Amino acid sequence: MKLAVIGLGLIGGSMAIDLRKAGFATEIMGVDINPDNAQEAYRLGIIDRIETLESAVPMADMVLIAIPVDKVLDSLIRVLDLVSDQTTVIDVGSTKKVIGSAVDNHPKRRNYISAHPMSGTENSGPSAALEGLFEGKINIICDQEKCGPQHLAFAEKMFQVLGMDIAYMTADDQDHSTAFISHLPHAAAFALANAVLDKEDRTIIFDLASGGFNSTVRLAKSSPEMWGPIFQQNREYVVESLEVYIKHLKAFKKSIESDPQQMMALMKNANRIRGILDGENDSLVKNEKTIVKLYTK
Amino acid sequence: MKLAVIGLGLIGGSMAIDLRKAGFATEIMGVDINPDNAQEAYRLGIIDRIETLESAVPMADMVLIAIPVDKVLDSLIRVLDLVSDQTTVIDVGSTKKVIGSAVDNHPKRRNYISAHPMSGTENSGPSAALEGLFEGKINIICDQEKCGPQHLAFAEKMFQVLGMDIAYMTADDQDHSTAFISHLPHAAAFALANAVLDKEDRTIIFDLASGGFNSTVRLAKSSPEMWGPIFQQNREYVVESLEVYIKHLKAFKKSIESDPQQMMALMKNANRIRGILDGENDSLVKNEKTIVKLYTK
Repeated sequence: MKLAVIGLGLIGGSMAIDLRKAGFATEIMGVDINPDNAQEAYRLGIIDRIETLESAVPMADMVLIAIPVDKVLDSLIRVLDLVSDQTTVIDVGSTKKVIGSAVDNHPKRRNYISAHPMSGTENSGPSAALEGLFEGKINIICDQEKCGPQHLAFAEKMFQVLGMDIAYMTADDQDHSTAFISHLPHAAAFALANAVLDKEDRTIIFDLASGGFNSTVRLAKSSPEMWGPIFQQNREYVVESLEVYIKHLKAFKKSIESDPQQMMALMKNANRIRGILDGENDSLVKNEKTIVKLYTK
Repeated sequence: MKLAVIGLGLIGGSMAIDLRKAGFATEIMGVDINPDNAQEAYRLGIIDRIETLESAVPMADMVLIAIPVDKVLDSLIRVLDLVSDQTTVIDVGSTKKVIGSAVDNHPKRRNYISAHPMSGTENSGPSAALEGLFEGKINIICDQEKCGPQHLAFAEKMFQVLGMDIAYMTADDQDHSTAFISHLPHAAAFALANAVLDKEDRTIIFDLASGGFNSTVRLAKSSPEMWGPIFQQNREYVVESLEVYIKHLKAFKKSIESDPQQMMALMKNANRIRGILDGENDSLVKNEKTIVKLYTK
């Protein structure tokens, strides 16, 4: 299978590595607006050759678009304008509604799979690409009824080759849920880093930074070029999630100031996250069966 | 060296494991108000025998107090009332000012080392104890001029055996810095968990929870029995840190709503945390030399 990867960063690079290793992609063409990135991906053996979007797409069986979300729409339209009926096109950005709506009337809409593989690290660029980044994680496919069945099946196969479970939902639901469980933690980490950097005696503080701080603030190392467009494109839901979060922070602060019993109750409630994330709560276990029940095609 | 450990949880248990392994402690007595914890620590081989505070302390060369901070003062006074001139007493809780002030006039004040080894996990109890938990981390010693030189030297040796660097500062500075780099991230994680749990369609959300969410919210699994007293005892500085954080969250939210350029600037500022935490910034490198320069005895 000939694969064209547009955007050779953490996500596109990691997908290419695993798809080649599994034998799913036998030839990988790389496209990147940054020639240094393209060269680096080639040097690292992630891609077989560097192409332009226009030269790669007509030769590809599958096109992956893995670029900042403010750049996706332009590239997606250029790709859909070029593809044959047989080529499957997948965009893997974190926000789906704006982009999906904009191509609803494109004659090749059925070639397009709107997806969000939920994995990543705080690093970026081809050298950040990792083997096995998606193993055991969840990929969201949005508005699957708009996809041609052969394209949907091909994309599903590809995500399964990466070791991913698949959840199906509307682009609106995905943007709302993702605001809370991915975009909010990133915004919270950026603000936490800024709050601590705001302190004057920062040398003292960072000399003391322990594991708890590092893991909480890790996401604040993320790329503004990737995250700025996500916050903008999902502005409504991200702002909602920040408002809910600020409300809970204020309630917690108030309880520390004047209501120790309420403070204990709030922490005990927060502790429930352990059972839920660790799958100890049966009704919330993360498995394919649950997801398929929730999001039947 | 005969060691008495009062409080056989994550911190006390982990210290006992490493001090025995290094041959620093040759006999370890365990004290815990919870008989199940004591039995478990014994069963796990963390301690040699179970004692009461009153029976263990007179036999010990060193006493470690590793219990929730609201319980420290009572135990510390009971210990200081019992010790000979030769016994070194170390309290390793996260807040130091309230406890330190309360024993300033105790006749055995010079036996007491006010310390905060900055390491931990979100788990608690003897079974959470880990080998190497403190290796490469920083221990704070507060108001060291109040300690007898032989007790200070013995405590410093013990923290070095654990593989820790030592920073020296006033109890007030430690409580202020620790509010920002440890207590605030915990409060932020509790509130983040509550914000996401607040969503009605939680099954959907948690099925999607990806690595970024998990690492940010990890601290929300922490024990309320440990953290409640910390927030209460360091209330003033914790509330200050939460106010600074909420201010930065609001500024970030506002920038997402109406000022994309400012949003990018705020993320770029937050990115500076990478260089600082990873030690890329020479002036802020975390090493013993820097610390000793900052906190000369």
